[in-house]
Amino acid sequence: MTEENYYRGKNILITGGLGFLGSTLAIKLVDLGARVTLLDGRIPELGANFFNIEPIKGRVEVVIANLSDRAAMDYYVRSQEVVFNIGMHSCHLESMTNPVFDLETNVVPQFHFLEALRYNNPQARVVYIGSRAQYGQALTIPITEDTPPNPKDIYAATKQAVEWYHLRYNKICGLGVTSIRLGNTYGPRHQMRHPKYGVQNYLIRLALDDQELKVFGDGLQKREMIYVDDVVDCLLLLGEKKACLNEVYGIGSAESITFLELVQAIVRACGSGRYVHAPWPEERKTIEVGDVVTDFTKLTRHTGWKPTILLAEGLAKTVDFYRRHREHYW
Amino acid sequence: MTEENYYRGKNILITGGLGFLGSTLAIKLVDLGARVTLLDGRIPELGANFFNIEPIKGRVEVVIANLSDRAAMDYYVRSQEVVFNIGMHSCHLESMTNPVFDLETNVVPQFHFLEALRYNNPQARVVYIGSRAQYGQALTIPITEDTPPNPKDIYAATKQAVEWYHLRYNKICGLGVTSIRLGNTYGPRHQMRHPKYGVQNYLIRLALDDQELKVFGDGLQKREMIYVDDVVDCLLLLGEKKACLNEVYGIGSAESITFLELVQAIVRACGSGRYVHAPWPEERKTIEVGDVVTDFTKLTRHTGWKPTILLAEGLAKTVDFYRRHREHYW
Repeated sequence: MTEENYYRGKNILITGGLGFLGSTLAIKLVDLGARVTLLDGRIPELGANFFNIEPIKGRVEVVIANLSDRAAMDYYVRSQEVVFNIGMHSCHLESMTNPVFDLETNVVPQFHFLEALRYNNPQARVVYIGSRAQYGQALTIPITEDTPPNPKDIYAATKQAVEWYHLRYNKICGLGVTSIRLGNTYGPRHQMRHPKYGVQNYLIRLALDDQELKVFGDGLQKREMIYVDDVVDCLLLLGEKKACLNEVYGIGSAESITFLELVQAIVRACGSGRYVHAPWPEERKTIEVGDVVTDFTKLTRHTGWKPTILLAEGLAKTVDFYRRHREHYW
Repeated sequence: MTEENYYRGKNILITGGLGFLGSTLAIKLVDLGARVTLLDGRIPELGANFFNIEPIKGRVEVVIANLSDRAAMDYYVRSQEVVFNIGMHSCHLESMTNPVFDLETNVVPQFHFLEALRYNNPQARVVYIGSRAQYGQALTIPITEDTPPNPKDIYAATKQAVEWYHLRYNKICGLGVTSIRLGNTYGPRHQMRHPKYGVQNYLIRLALDDQELKVFGDGLQKREMIYVDDVVDCLLLLGEKKACLNEVYGIGSAESITFLELVQAIVRACGSGRYVHAPWPEERKTIEVGDVVTDFTKLTRHTGWKPTILLAEGLAKTVDFYRRHREHYW
């Protein structure tokens, strides 16, 4: 648990603030009494959605600006105490079909954003959202923070590089940095228009629409599904605990399930849809990473964090949200 | 040894072709009967020098263009059979004082260059020049290709990321890629105007100018000095051998010496200059990597390559070159 008063009155900046994770975090931070600024580039096809922040409308500052806009960043990073740097795309496939999109969305803006912090607010504490994908086909199971990076696609290579860039800014200007290598996260507020980011969420849409959900191959690869509220609790702890400065963490879930079991649970939670097995499409096979099993004892040791929401409960909440707010996401 | 006729009549593209390594490679390739095109961005302070290609003047095509110039790259990569992608900066310190320079010089151009290859010549074979710096403070000694990356600065993180980008283009479009993680290379044709790239070369200038050479700390960190002709032989083999496709290699030297011994050997070879011990400057201490000891048996096994030129011999050749051509480098 985060200290009761740690975030009260603090200036907090969230990049990607209109997206899935950024907005959910913002709602919680406003609840804790923080002064929250949301930066969002509103990059087409990414997750920005004003409906996401409906519960805190008027109680947060919203700024639409690309992180590459150095003059804007110079201004907005000032006097921020904790920065949650979430604003990146997360599409493995797109990074392979269009690497320049990866460059322009995930690489270039991060350089300019870090430079803005360096010259205007090196005292800030920054939580960077890394990716489980950095491990690729994991060289050790379970995955720990010492498992060497082994990215299978451009996206994953970039996420690793930008994590390193963040950590090196500690040497450059004293910036306090923490990286969390996030895996599959699901829950309300994720974009549902296409399957490019967070396929686990899009599967919920397919089931709610009574469509067919495809399971490539036997679907027996192990997955960890983390409910977004658990991730938000984790981020809050990472932005607070001194032990987390200049550290990287993996994160996992309470249950280890197969992809097939996930699909079955989604169909069950929705009461509609059905699944079929299908052969692996070539472009997906080349970036598939096999089993994901993460040892997150370091995270628990440094922060006390543990996952609290089981898949059935998280799916029920998620399905309920989209049933009520379908018109804002479909 | 490279096959007698492998490069004869072949179309070869070298990026950074006016620099230290690119020009030395070009001279050798022209000698082997290849049709060589040199691309060079002539980025200020990097190593481009027309005098470097004096021995092959009129026998190579020289193109001044930045690798970010996609239209130019689309044109020049066509029908090239082997591409030696050497055109990057190599300054650790600059990457930390000015990360945007690293972005603009080593990251952005590489994306555009790889895309040009993808759409115009995915049959090409590409040799990428990685860096020993990717290992940083090496997590294993000796260093092998399986030693996890551990970059200590922005430059090194970028070199690792761009190596991954290259290798992933094999999945994207079938590009045949080899990476050689090059360490300290010395010899004729290196720029001598400042110590930012290849300090081992600049030390030779200081000694020739009868100046003081600084040894930070005790100077007992182990180093591997590779003479440029040995590196060129290695690159030729990497561009030829089938076993090298989609592989990465470390490279080392015949002798393991300390930095102090290197400085002493330089003073001896020049017959002038002297050295003093000095405390580590803060900005260098943070990026110092400790001992470098590389196990390059994989490279030898796949190509037959071994270093042939000992330090005393290589230094003698280097000193002789700069004595004769000082006005083009000072």
